[in-house]
Amino acid sequence: MIDRVLLLLQERRYSELRHLLDDLHVADIADLFSEIEDRELMLRLFRLLPKESAAETFSYMDTDIQQKIIEAITDVELKIILDDMFLDDCVDLIEEMPANVVQRVMRNSSPENRKLINQYLQYPDDSAGSLMTNEYVCLKRGMTVADALAVIRRDGVDKETIELCYVASPDRKLQGEVSLRQLVLSDPDTPITDIMDDNVQFVHTHDDEEIIAQMFTHYDLLAMPVVDNEDRLVGIITIDDAVDVIQEENTEDFELMAGMAPSEETYLKTPVFTLAKNRIVWLIVLMFSAMISGALLEHYEAAIASLPLLVSFIPMLMGTGGNGGSQASTIVIRGLALGEIDLGDVLTVWWKEARVSLLCGTVLAAVNFLRIWLQYGEADVAAVVSLTLICTLFIAKSLGCLLPIAAKKLHMDPALMSAPLITTITDASTILVFFTFSLTFLADRL
Amino acid sequence: MIDRVLLLLQERRYSELRHLLDDLHVADIADLFSEIEDRELMLRLFRLLPKESAAETFSYMDTDIQQKIIEAITDVELKIILDDMFLDDCVDLIEEMPANVVQRVMRNSSPENRKLINQYLQYPDDSAGSLMTNEYVCLKRGMTVADALAVIRRDGVDKETIELCYVASPDRKLQGEVSLRQLVLSDPDTPITDIMDDNVQFVHTHDDEEIIAQMFTHYDLLAMPVVDNEDRLVGIITIDDAVDVIQEENTEDFELMAGMAPSEETYLKTPVFTLAKNRIVWLIVLMFSAMISGALLEHYEAAIASLPLLVSFIPMLMGTGGNGGSQASTIVIRGLALGEIDLGDVLTVWWKEARVSLLCGTVLAAVNFLRIWLQYGEADVAAVVSLTLICTLFIAKSLGCLLPIAAKKLHMDPALMSAPLITTITDASTILVFFTFSLTFLADRL
Repeated sequence: MIDRVLLLLQERRYSELRHLLDDLHVADIADLFSEIEDRELMLRLFRLLPKESAAETFSYMDTDIQQKIIEAITDVELKIILDDMFLDDCVDLIEEMPANVVQRVMRNSSPENRKLINQYLQYPDDSAGSLMTNEYVCLKRGMTVADALAVIRRDGVDKETIELCYVASPDRKLQGEVSLRQLVLSDPDTPITDIMDDNVQFVHTHDDEEIIAQMFTHYDLLAMPVVDNEDRLVGIITIDDAVDVIQEENTEDFELMAGMAPSEETYLKTPVFTLAKNRIVWLIVLMFSAMISGALLEHYEAAIASLPLLVSFIPMLMGTGGNGGSQASTIVIRGLALGEIDLGDVLTVWWKEARVSLLCGTVLAAVNFLRIWLQYGEADVAAVVSLTLICTLFIAKSLGCLLPIAAKKLHMDPALMSAPLITTITDASTILVFFTFSLTFLADRL
Repeated sequence: MIDRVLLLLQERRYSELRHLLDDLHVADIADLFSEIEDRELMLRLFRLLPKESAAETFSYMDTDIQQKIIEAITDVELKIILDDMFLDDCVDLIEEMPANVVQRVMRNSSPENRKLINQYLQYPDDSAGSLMTNEYVCLKRGMTVADALAVIRRDGVDKETIELCYVASPDRKLQGEVSLRQLVLSDPDTPITDIMDDNVQFVHTHDDEEIIAQMFTHYDLLAMPVVDNEDRLVGIITIDDAVDVIQEENTEDFELMAGMAPSEETYLKTPVFTLAKNRIVWLIVLMFSAMISGALLEHYEAAIASLPLLVSFIPMLMGTGGNGGSQASTIVIRGLALGEIDLGDVLTVWWKEARVSLLCGTVLAAVNFLRIWLQYGEADVAAVVSLTLICTLFIAKSLGCLLPIAAKKLHMDPALMSAPLITTITDASTILVFFTFSLTFLADRL
């Protein structure tokens, strides 16, 4: 596809190209731009887009492409695009651009949009306020279905969402929600208060993205109103933004849980240096914590020298502890993120993990005892290793479930208490338990 | 809340309770049922639900509660619920219930629904076919906007989705999509072919959930049509089901990536025995693989006996390798799941990870060299440990990025090639590299 587009662009076969673009979804047209290296060709393609879809295509583009295009087009062209864009997409754009581009965008926005953009930019990143749009239909209590449909027909073209309309009092307090569906299916003379839903789910401007993601999932919403501190309706969040938030929150958790700082861009677009920077901090922290395990091993040097066989069980013991701990922490972090586990469930969760660890520990210990006994014929060593396995798994699973809940309690992101950290902590405890048992039960041989 | 509901139920203060339920969202009412232990009280509450929302509330309940309610209500009540439920929710229900409940549900469904349910049940789990619903509005090419709105007003009440309507040819081939929004905003005499979008994104009945999740995210869809092998329109998938699929796919990846079999139920509802069963397989597999590292250590027993200090660096080296490898595998698995990384990017990704590993490796090696040199005054040991660190990180990051891509190529789930497996493999390679370097560069001391 991209080869054909490039060819047509280079040979200036514009009518063929327009025909080809006609058959593509705007999201796919936006993707084409990422694959064009040449700025001149990129600009040519942009100018070929039909007027009515240029702004929408622009909204779907990656940030770096948007910046290149803004830098290449004239002020007149930029003004047209900005006027056609939805306000929430415009705010997203400005949040990502460098200062000189932001200035140009602001200069070319209409005065009322400039005011709104400035207001939206004051909400914290990742809050409901920074996600919302003001392009929704607001109805008044006294209206009939016919009145409401007339308002929608008059104002609807410019609105991002008309599938759900909101009813507000004269002082802009949120009163209820009416769907376009109900309006179309109801008798024109019905008062909208008869069909409106007055139990609307809403969020406050400062509520966090994670809550928004949970509410959209839990209540199967298509859109959700946002109110300010005085409960006045100030905007709505639409499902397409909510889906993006859900995916971003998940990606952030995946990254944190693997011991990385979350990245702003997709992997292929993130420079090597940024990737390294995102990862090095945790690698250093964990390297230093792992030295504790090393220091413990040094402490038990004498025991190792008398029975070097002991060392060969350490990778297996540490590995099993680490894996058991990450299983528990992953499942608890995920449960917390989805709202399936609450802070109040801490004892239930721990008691569950304790029993799981004893079940798994017993099976692993039995397998291990047999293996070591058959391979080395040393029942006492086999017993010490198996006993350590059970204790290690119990400690690992307990830490794995308790630390994320504790983090949540302390208003930290539970995903920070994930596999790498738990593994490092259990490594040290594994060595401590193993040599304590060895020195106790194998004392005659050490 | 639940305490008040229980009190009102026990004291049979039904009018107060009805009043209280009026103010709740159906999703929250459904949650109340999970907290009632007593089957009799549960049934009383269910019978208090307003007729028009009983089926919807039922659809939001967890599977185990649905089963309890079906077992408690009469055939007449069951029939009413089933008639009011959307077909896709009904199919979901049947997929989860034990055989005797399924028989009762089927016996009480209308003959046409029974036929459709049987047909839907034949699609593979997690396919577009098993997710879709037939409750959408189908329009014909020749219609005007007024005709279309008349069809919607006539048939729309029973349809799950009317916000997007689909245009099909007489032989049921999908022709295009018209939104309710466009219909309401257009002149009544306009032919729908003038406003319909004929570039509709669609999936086939056998397409996998992951593709559906990617398409909804990429194209910001509210609904997507499903066609059969002959391109005939057979159903649609709605955004609420797509959001559930996105969350389920993510949860499955989290679980696989922590070395667990994915679970069907939420954590708190999964029995301890099932949790243990989901985890034990990987724990055993990884325990046996970790024994390779143990065997390698045994092989180097003589070196360890001559210079026991070496052992104390092993946890740090293995830990850093494991963490570096999981960082790479996590980011690549996530990129593959979101469609940001393709199979064709394998060299780009590897080259990126190679440079990241050298950057991170050099920093870690420098810190380490200083630490060991200052603490033990042994520059040769410090050099061997630092060199091992760089190599280990390079191997770990290479495996971490290549194994998930290889898995995808072999049509396996990339999430299987995750932290625990990569950690175990790099553990063995770390020990091999460390002792090879030690025996080479510290030969005079071993």
